[in-house]
Order: sequence, then structure tokens, then C-alpha cells
Amino acid sequence: MLFLVHMIVNIPRDLPEEQANEIKLREKNYSQDLQRSGKWPHIWRVVGEYANYSIFDVESNDELHTLLSQLPLFPFMEIKVTPLAKHPSAI
Amino acid sequence: MLFLVHMIVNIPRDLPEEQANEIKLREKNYSQDLQRSGKWPHIWRVVGEYANYSIFDVESNDELHTLLSQLPLFPFMEIKVTPLAKHPSAI
Amino acid sequence: MLFLVHMIVNIPRDLPEEQANEIKLREKNYSQDLQRSGKWPHIWRVVGEYANYSIFDVESNDELHTLLSQLPLFPFMEIKVTPLAKHPSAI
Amino acid sequence: MLFLVHMIVNIPRDLPEEQANEIKLREKNYSQDLQRSGKWPHIWRVVGEYANYSIFDVESNDELHTLLSQLPLFPFMEIKVTPLAKHPSAI
Amino acid sequence: MLFLVHMIVNIPRDLPEEQANEIKLREKNYSQDLQRSGKWPHIWRVVGEYANYSIFDVESNDELHTLLSQLPLFPFMEIKVTPLAKHPSAI
Amino acid sequence: MLFLVHMIVNIPRDLPEEQANEIKLREKNYSQDLQRSGKWPHIWRVVGEYANYSIFDVESNDELHTLLSQLPLFPFMEIKVTPLAKHPSAI
Amino acid sequence: MLFLVHMIVNIPRDLPEEQANEIKLREKNYSQDLQRSGKWPHIWRVVGEYANYSIFDVESNDELHTLLSQLPLFPFMEIKVTPLAKHPSAI
Amino acid sequence: MLFLVHMIVNIPRDLPEEQANEIKLREKNYSQDLQRSGKWPHIWRVVGEYANYSIFDVESNDELHTLLSQLPLFPFMEIKVTPLAKHPSAI
Amino acid sequence: MLFLVHMIVNIPRDLPEEQANEIKLREKNYSQDLQRSGKWPHIWRVVGEYANYSIFDVESNDELHTLLSQLPLFPFMEIKVTPLAKHPSAI
Amino acid sequence: MLFLVHMIVNIPRDLPEEQANEIKLREKNYSQDLQRSGKWPHIWRVVGEYANYSIFDVESNDELHTLLSQLPLFPFMEIKVTPLAKHPSAI
Repeated sequence: MLFLVHMIVNIPRDLPEEQANEIKLREKNYSQDLQRSGKWPHIWRVVGEYANYSIFDVESNDELHTLLSQLPLFPFMEIKVTPLAKHPSAI
Repeated sequence: MLFLVHMIVNIPRDLPEEQANEIKLREKNYSQDLQRSGKWPHIWRVVGEYANYSIFDVESNDELHTLLSQLPLFPFMEIKVTPLAKHPSAI
Repeated sequence: MLFLVHMIVNIPRDLPEEQANEIKLREKNYSQDLQRSGKWPHIWRVVGEYANYSIFDVESNDELHTLLSQLPLFPFMEIKVTPLAKHPSAI
Repeated sequence: MLFLVHMIVNIPRDLPEEQANEIKLREKNYSQDLQRSGKWPHIWRVVGEYANYSIFDVESNDELHTLLSQLPLFPFMEIKVTPLAKHPSAI
Repeated sequence: MLFLVHMIVNIPRDLPEEQANEIKLREKNYSQDLQRSGKWPHIWRVVGEYANYSIFDVESNDELHTLLSQLPLFPFMEIKVTPLAKHPSAI
Repeated sequence: MLFLVHMIVNIPRDLPEEQANEIKLREKNYSQDLQRSGKWPHIWRVVGEYANYSIFDVESNDELHTLLSQLPLFPFMEIKVTPLAKHPSAI
Repeated sequence: MLFLVHMIVNIPRDLPEEQANEIKLREKNYSQDLQRSGKWPHIWRVVGEYANYSIFDVESNDELHTLLSQLPLFPFMEIKVTPLAKHPSAI
Repeated sequence: MLFLVHMIVNIPRDLPEEQANEIKLREKNYSQDLQRSGKWPHIWRVVGEYANYSIFDVESNDELHTLLSQLPLFPFMEIKVTPLAKHPSAI
Repeated sequence: MLFLVHMIVNIPRDLPEEQANEIKLREKNYSQDLQRSGKWPHIWRVVGEYANYSIFDVESNDELHTLLSQLPLFPFMEIKVTPLAKHPSAI
Repeated sequence: MLFLVHMIVNIPRDLPEEQANEIKLREKNYSQDLQRSGKWPHIWRVVGEYANYSIFDVESNDELHTLLSQLPLFPFMEIKVTPLAKHPSAI
């Protein structure tokens, strides 16, 4: 079951750089683990913005919320979720 | 080069049904031809709406505009294009 | 799996009244059938508006889109879907 | 008398974690007491967001404002209230 | 129980003038009956607009929806309802 | 001459509580003085929000601005003013 | 007492040209009469739009509403009114 | 003196095709005359939309309004004008 | 050449009062100098807000940007500029 | 391949002035290098705002994102990118 997820990142300026880097590293690892598992099949950078559009493939709304709320950058993100369905013209 | 394209369809009620069906059929064929060519790798229905989110993979802005403006439903669509770049965490 | 669905109805003034009534009757029957089946557990009128907020309980995004797009009033509705998850404080 | 209540939570980063946890615990207890009392029959998490949609069942606007303004997280919430009425198609 | 109600009127240009006048007359009578009954204690014109802000004093959300949906101009209005509570500084 | 005034209050978290309480007390006294004088005939709390809708009855725009800008909470408020006129259906 | 008034004009395409011209002529005369009277001291075209910003100088909200609602183009305008006060730096 | 001009075109469906084509041809000629004159140095299509962003180089606001309001498609356009100044980093 | 300029002032709470007062005094002097010079013919307070609408009369966009960016309060203002043209009905 | 880029700059007040000046100097040099290279053919100041509209001419979305994300002011900017195509009326 697919969802389009729009994530805008706002890391506060007063977060110590070391801490920010540590969170970003964990975010990257977490994201890549989910990508490898097939739960997060696509992630694209929005040109010119610290934001991404992603596709998630999950079993349920609850699973998606669990995955998103465990993102290391979750406290610094504005997230919008759009549920997707099969398009009748999709091949 | 990837773009996220959001298309909202508004077919006017006074378009004769036969004509609407003929346009939708051409739209479907046109879309599936582009999907097969690799130019339009993804199309998803937005749940509850006569709208889709799509991914286009093209050589240039001009090519994308040409493809979109030739959509049979183009006169009845509201389209927004978001340019995408490779995400540093993408595997 | 629960979704909050917001539906705003705009029946065009030039739809013949008889036809409008026939569609509304089918809408009511369709809605009540889904309510009885457990797929549409709640529907509330928004005070002062020709609109409702509803809760749907479905197996998947595709099922929800199928149910919504078969609403007799679907061509005259503006629909927004919000996926819901279990709240950690819910009893 | 039913109301749909949308709550978005923004806990400031400089609130000491201990204090934040204490507030969240009081919030949970407060919410569960109201759920048990029947005043707050539904609370759902919005997927991907630190937000919820809730249904309140109260005697009056004044009662609803009293209940909401006593939420331990009230100072950190953006709240919007939508009054609901019985839907003519509800079974 | 008080509610602030914002009503914007859009009478379609192709409504025959006679019919429009008849509806406006019924609207005026209906409004004045409710004003006399105490259910609609205030109605003010928004300067420069075909719109009003009103205060309604009703027993319940259902009663308010019934009163509003029976406005003769209801099909031609965009209505927004804001529930009001007693202000702690009100004398 | 009547105006609808919408006031949203945002007291900054780092304002010392004692100072905040002193300002709120002055606000309450100031508001009640104006209510008694007939300049501020109505003030209602917006349910679920730290906000109010008020009616002011003043001689001129300048008088209204003077009254509002002297509110003790003025520096912490977002205010919007809507001029009102007599409604032709008002009794 | 001054007000900034923003008027956007939307003349429907199916209004017969003769009728439109007659209304525009009456609008011009009406506007120039009010300008000469001092009630409408400024009117400026918004560059690139069929819209204007105007300053009105009136005795009361009721007078302003009367003046605006008698504009021959009133049924085809979207109007927003902003009350103005003397600025403390104005010379 | 430079201005960024955003033009969105909405040609009504019931405009006879011949008439629409005649207007578009005049629009093209008018635009190209202004481009050759140096008054309209840039015009770009917005990808996926029947819209353009343009740069105008004129002597005054009045001249710009005159040029824009004489566009053959002016009655079918939504136009927004942004005044531009020399950027201190421009070479 | 006329422009409508909307200025919203947000002076940060942690700006020392003395410094704020010094800036406001310079702002007032700067504004009054420009008013006397004829470059800033009108300034009005927006009722209930720390904001103003002003009319500027300048030779060019560059001159306007220079004047505005030298406002002592410029770093604490949100400014929107609307170019104005002569209205055909202006007397 | 052309893109319209809108950049709004928000330099936080607590950034030490020396550091801010150093960043602005690097921004200027970086911008002028790109202008000289032909990648950034136009940059205009928005009148009255700390913002610019720019035209970029790049090979790909990825190249544009790389150029923008390396702006020294990038962490303090809100950026929106609009892809442009050749306009059929452009000479």
C-alpha cells in the first residue's frame, strides 16, 4: 500500500553541530535500512529545498506512522502524507 | 531527470459523454505509451480524488512541457511540476 | 484501518431536480449499506455547511478509493482523505 | 453534542525533558479520564504528524472550552473546533 | 449557547429577478422571525460585501444546523460557524 | 459605529509568570472598564483557542485604534478588524 | 474617517456588451461625482489587473457601505475594506 | 525599469475556436512586436501550465499597465506584477 | 510614479527598549523627511495593527527600493509593494 | 535549461554581524562567479524585500540543486524553483 510523503526539514540553528551530524547520520542509516527492506522504495530531493518527496510501501496506516515517527529527524520535520491507489491507466 | 507532477482533472459537466469517453481513451493510450517508453515511470491515483501524482523522467524542461501539453486531458487539468534531484541518502 | 474523510458537496444548479433527488437517494442507500457493513462507521454533518466528516474503516487505500469513487455524488464532491493511526493515549 | 477537534502539538525544544515528560503523562491521564467518562469518545493520531483528530461529546460550548483549556498540553497546542450535527443519512 | 456565523451570499446571475426577490423576501421574514424569537440576537452587514456576521443563540449544534439549512438563501451561501464560550473578562 | 474585532493572544513562554499575570490583570480591568463604558459591548472566547471575537462601538477609526493599541496585551496579540454596518434585515 | 478599499472587477463574459458599457459609464459618473464631493479622494488602477485601490473619506461605516453597495459595478466586484487611522509619523 | 509579470491564461471553453485562434494570433504578433521593441525582453512558458513568466522593461507603471491591458488575451488572463530593482550582486 | 506599500512591523521582544526607541525615532524622522520631500505623500495606520499602508511617489523601482531598504525599521518589517497606475475614472 | 528561482533571505538576528558579513561576502563572490560562468544569467532584487528572483541556466535538476545548496546563504533562505520552457511566442 503506497503513500506519498512530503518531508520538510528544519534543523534549529542552536542544535550543536556535532549533535546535528550524529542525528543526520542515524537518519541516513535508518532511511537506507528501510529502503533496502522495500518499505521506502523512493526518496527524492526537492530541488532548492531541504525537503524530500518519498514513496512508502507499508501494510497499514499504523505501520507508516511508526516508521515516520521513528525517523531520527522526526522532531525537526514537517510531514504531510497522501494515500495513493492504483491508477486505472498504470501499466 | 525526474519531476513530480500533480494533475487534478476537472472535466466540465457539459462535455458530451461520448466526447469525454473518447478523450479519456486517448489519454489512457497516450499515458501507457509514455509509461512503456520509460518517460512516465510512475502514475498513482490520489485516494478520493480525480487526481494523480506522477513521476516523469525526461531530458529537459522543454521535453516535459511538450509531453504534458499534449495530454488529451490537458485543457481540463490543473498541473503543478516539482523538479526532483538525487537524494544523498538514496541507495 | 481508519481514515478521516472530508466531503464537500456542490450540486450544480442546472442539474434537474428529479435527477438530483434520484442521485441523493442512491447516495443515502449506498452510504447506509456501507455503514451497516462496518466500512463507514461514522458520518457527521458539518454545522451550517453541505459537507460531512466521515470515518472509514477499510483494508487498504485501494479499497477506500473504490468506495469513495463509487459514491453517487462523487462527481459533485470535493474530497480530502487523512490517514489515521492508533493514538497512544486511546483507551 | 459532538465536535471534531483538531490538535497540533508543538512542544518547544527548550522545555526540559523531565518537565515535558511530566506534562505528557498528565495529558495522557487527563485524556483517558475524559475518554472513560464518555466526554472524549474518539482520539486518532494523524499519520506522520504530532497531531490528532478527536471527537468530543459535551453539553455545551462552555463545557468544551473548559475541557480543552485544561489540557496539560494546551499552551503548546494549536486547536481548531468544528461543530458537528446529526447527518440525515446516518443510521 | 452562542455561535458566530459568517455568511457570504452569491446569488447566481441567471436566477430570474422575480425568483431572487421572492427568496430574499422569505429570507428577511425568516431572519426577523428568528431575531424576534431570540435565536438570532445579532446580524450585521460586512461593509462593502454581500455578507454578514451573525450571532446565534441555540440549544445545540443540531438546532443551529436546522436553523441555518432552512435559510431561504442557504443554497446560495457560503457559511462558516465558530462556537463561542463565555469570556472570563466579560462582565 | 460597530466593528468586529478578532484577537489572537500569544504570550511568549519566556515572559516571567509574575509579569504575565500582572499584564493579564490590567487587561481584564481595562476590558471591563471599556465594557462598562459601552465602547466594548461584547467579548466572546473562541472555543478551544486563546482568542476572542469582540464587538466595539466607537465614534471613529481613530478612536478604535487608540482603544486597541492601549490593550495591555496588544504587543502579544494578532488583531483583525472588520467594519460592520446596519443589516437591512435587522430588527 | 479614511478607509482603504480594494475592488476587483469581474464582468461576466455573457453580459451583453451594450449593457456592460452602460454600467461602466454609470460607474464612471458615479465615481467622479463622489470624487468631486470629497468622499472618494483617491482611486488608483492596480498595474496589470482589472482592479483598483481607493481611499474613501466618510462619516461612518454605514455611509461607506451605502456608497459602495450603490456602485453600478457592485454586483460584479469583490471588495475588501481596511479601516485606516492617523499615523503618528504623518506630518 | 524592470518588472516580473506572471500571466495565467484561461480561455473559456465556449469561446468559438476560430475566435480563440484569431485572438491567439494577435497575441503572438503583439507580443513579438513588443519583444522586438525591447519592452518585453523575456517570455518563458511555465512547464506544465498555460502560463508564462515575463520580464518587461518600461519607463513607468502607467506604460506597463497600458501594455498589459492591451494584450489581446488580457480579458482571459490573471496577471500579477512584481517590481524589480538592480541586485547589488548583479554583474 | 505611485506605489502602494504595505508595511507590517515586528520588533523583536529582546531588542533593548532604548535601542528600539532610538530606531523608532530615526524611523519617524526619516519618514517625515520623505513626506516633506513629496516622495512619501501618504502614510496611514491600519486600525488595530502595528502596520501601515503608504503611498510612495518615485522616479523608478530602484529609487523605491533604495528608500525602503534605508528605513531604520527595515530589518523588522514585512513589506509588500503594489505598483499603481492612473485610473481612467480619476478626476 | 532555464529555471526561475525565488529566494527569500532571513538572516537570524543573533548571527554575529561579522559572521553575517563574511557569509554575505562569500555569497556575493559565489553569485558573481556563477553569473560570469553563464549558469546564473539574471538576478533581480524584489522591490522592498530582502529577496530576489533569479534565472538559472543549467544542464539538469541535479546541477541546479547542487548550485543552490552551495549558496553560502542557503541555510537562511526559503527557495522556490519553477521550471521554464521555451515560449512559442518568444522570438
